[in-house]
Amino acid sequence: MKRLSNIVPAILVAGCLLSCHNSRTMITFPEPPRDPGVTDVLELRCEPLDTVRVAFIGLGMRGSGAVYRYTFLEGVKVVALCDVVPENVERANMTLEERGFPKAEAYTGAEDWKKVCQRPDVDLVYVCTHWDLHAPIGVYAMEQGKHVALEVPAALTIQECWQLVNAAEKTRRHCIQLENCNYDYFEMATHQMARQGLFGEIVHAEGAYIHDLRFLNFDDTTGYWNMWRLEHNARENGNLYPTHGLGPIAHILDIHRGDKMEYLVSVSSGQFGMSAYARDKFGEDSDYAQREYLNGDMNTSVIKTAKGRTIMLQHDVTSPRPYSRIHMISGTKGFAQKYPVTGIALEPDAHRFLPPDKLDSLLRLYEHPIVREVGQKAREVGGHGGMDFIMDYRLVYCLRNGLPLDMDVYDAAEWSSIIEFSRTSVANEGRPVAIPDFTRGAWNRLSKVTYY
Amino acid sequence: MKRLSNIVPAILVAGCLLSCHNSRTMITFPEPPRDPGVTDVLELRCEPLDTVRVAFIGLGMRGSGAVYRYTFLEGVKVVALCDVVPENVERANMTLEERGFPKAEAYTGAEDWKKVCQRPDVDLVYVCTHWDLHAPIGVYAMEQGKHVALEVPAALTIQECWQLVNAAEKTRRHCIQLENCNYDYFEMATHQMARQGLFGEIVHAEGAYIHDLRFLNFDDTTGYWNMWRLEHNARENGNLYPTHGLGPIAHILDIHRGDKMEYLVSVSSGQFGMSAYARDKFGEDSDYAQREYLNGDMNTSVIKTAKGRTIMLQHDVTSPRPYSRIHMISGTKGFAQKYPVTGIALEPDAHRFLPPDKLDSLLRLYEHPIVREVGQKAREVGGHGGMDFIMDYRLVYCLRNGLPLDMDVYDAAEWSSIIEFSRTSVANEGRPVAIPDFTRGAWNRLSKVTYY
Repeated sequence: MKRLSNIVPAILVAGCLLSCHNSRTMITFPEPPRDPGVTDVLELRCEPLDTVRVAFIGLGMRGSGAVYRYTFLEGVKVVALCDVVPENVERANMTLEERGFPKAEAYTGAEDWKKVCQRPDVDLVYVCTHWDLHAPIGVYAMEQGKHVALEVPAALTIQECWQLVNAAEKTRRHCIQLENCNYDYFEMATHQMARQGLFGEIVHAEGAYIHDLRFLNFDDTTGYWNMWRLEHNARENGNLYPTHGLGPIAHILDIHRGDKMEYLVSVSSGQFGMSAYARDKFGEDSDYAQREYLNGDMNTSVIKTAKGRTIMLQHDVTSPRPYSRIHMISGTKGFAQKYPVTGIALEPDAHRFLPPDKLDSLLRLYEHPIVREVGQKAREVGGHGGMDFIMDYRLVYCLRNGLPLDMDVYDAAEWSSIIEFSRTSVANEGRPVAIPDFTRGAWNRLSKVTYY
Repeated sequence: MKRLSNIVPAILVAGCLLSCHNSRTMITFPEPPRDPGVTDVLELRCEPLDTVRVAFIGLGMRGSGAVYRYTFLEGVKVVALCDVVPENVERANMTLEERGFPKAEAYTGAEDWKKVCQRPDVDLVYVCTHWDLHAPIGVYAMEQGKHVALEVPAALTIQECWQLVNAAEKTRRHCIQLENCNYDYFEMATHQMARQGLFGEIVHAEGAYIHDLRFLNFDDTTGYWNMWRLEHNARENGNLYPTHGLGPIAHILDIHRGDKMEYLVSVSSGQFGMSAYARDKFGEDSDYAQREYLNGDMNTSVIKTAKGRTIMLQHDVTSPRPYSRIHMISGTKGFAQKYPVTGIALEPDAHRFLPPDKLDSLLRLYEHPIVREVGQKAREVGGHGGMDFIMDYRLVYCLRNGLPLDMDVYDAAEWSSIIEFSRTSVANEGRPVAIPDFTRGAWNRLSKVTYY
């Protein structure tokens, strides 16, 4: 048998000959220059607010829950409620009354969100509309001098991502994307573990939004308003909802605080599940069964970072399978994964998961200080098991104390940008797409994510 | 709020403008034409062999176990044993003697594998050498009129894949890749379930080889001969060992029996784990710590098929984490996953995994007929829990009965081709690589994988 050293170089030749580089292979989007005199908003601090005066826009699924949770927070005042469905506004006002607070002013016109943003007595605009209005309201609210909290995804296109960044930098207002999953208990504990080096150097991470939403997407009465989410899945093909999976691992990887996403490849399966569901539910000849749905059931994207780490990200809202955000972290010293079962494995015995008692004590040991502070109350108030309340609590806490928010406008842009980048890659048979530095040069200035 | 129908088309424009098509985006490899008069070897049947006379080449880790298992099979005769390490040959002959069989002829010269292939009394050459010799011996053995069984991967380059296909088609000999994982119990049961429609239309599948091999790769005495595997990881970057993950799902997806892989994108993380391990084990200043290792710790590839299904495939042999081949199947009616925990979820209750008792009875119900036939004996003989013996049993059974083998030369080429295709995509920042039809036009002739 030949010695290997004589064999391997010959094998390598084919790959090298075919090699070609960035300019020829990668799709790039234009990167708008920053206006003269404008600077970034990394770690932006604004004037402390004794009472945060909040206006809620969009009071359907997510908004109504948010109003309820805000009644448990100190130092907030709900001043305006806005939704095109009057019953939603009415119900939210009933929530306020039941919880012992005065009714807020009601807005129900299609363009009333502008009036809400213009109110001088509003500090924070909290947006839970359908996806298409997140970025437009976000930009408008900041232009009116308000801080803005946008439900996920904050933006649907790269253009919208830049609009949010530009507006935040120009107006010096906070723009936070309401990524509640960053505040889930296991996610926060693994963030602590990562920060303290338990996983060693992190090499690879995975996140997902795998959640069969067909019962909601095809429900024209109690589902999404105007069936807007079905329309997105009918007209777009890619990872349409990346932030729940990406947010927590992007913070663990310190994206734009020492690392940055450089490029992405993305491939979608064909669409099978929506048509199958529509045939079952409405019949073979129904419009729902006959029409076209563009979005592939499963979208898989892989992202490479400047430090050489990889992120695998998935989206599937049509396949019948258990819910999963994966939330996996793999490093040179250990491994953690949340779905399908919570497991942590650490050197020198990383080839098996910790037994339940050791896992429990590890999770207690690395419980995030924020969870220690407010976790019990969060569990009582509820909202996805408590993470929604921790998110609200933190936002109000930082605003009242003039602190940088846990998640900034660059997070919002980066995590939302996967939507159009993945769609573009999918439309080009998985061709790589360059991910810009939304901080425009400052991604390496901070050394880590900080929750003040 | 605007109606969504007015908003979405505008969002789509950016993606469409950037669209470009195959010729510009995809890397393609040349596809050699078939020689005149030669036809494919789909479902190849050869003369039945009353006794299969076997020669083993490579008697290290895998080969020594194979010899032992063959002593439990009827209708076989081990006629030759070949390895450059004389002790390996000696040990294998002792195994034969201990099990009551005569010694086989011993070969220990570096080029003796040619002599072994030339022997007129050999029907099957069983190859368990280091990777680099699999395809060369395979081609040579077929040219000498022998059937050949090649340990995984059967080939390291696309050129070698075509060499195997061409040799099998020209010589009309069997070339099987010894993919034992296709015979594991859960894999076979899920194959049965898929075949009988339990998962509905299959949309997406995942496989992997995630196995921390650093203790073997860096062991110069009892590890891989001549540390050949470390050298591959030092010099190549991609999915170097794709077949254990891909084989079982490729059969479930009926690849080249009605579907085919069309293109692949692949991204590797940087290399962190091998250097970290070498520093810990040999010291910061050691040659092992100082040298370069090209292979990224985690490689993730996504494959799209002609029917629009996707396959996500991973390779990681350096990260400290529990072993996983994933083995996941997601369809329009159900879901199965083997790692990290065995779980199956089926409509109408697919949002949760079946409880243990229901999972057990389902697995019994869908136990593969082959497992029912030989599974108990396989567990007794052993070899990765029995799957190795089932594989050997099936190969000998089909050869003795003149039947097509369970896995053909196209499987060998397809599954092995991921090595060079992934390396090429990785070297081009994840650019898509076209996967050829190794059957050269016949991928749609058969309608399913058949185990005769």
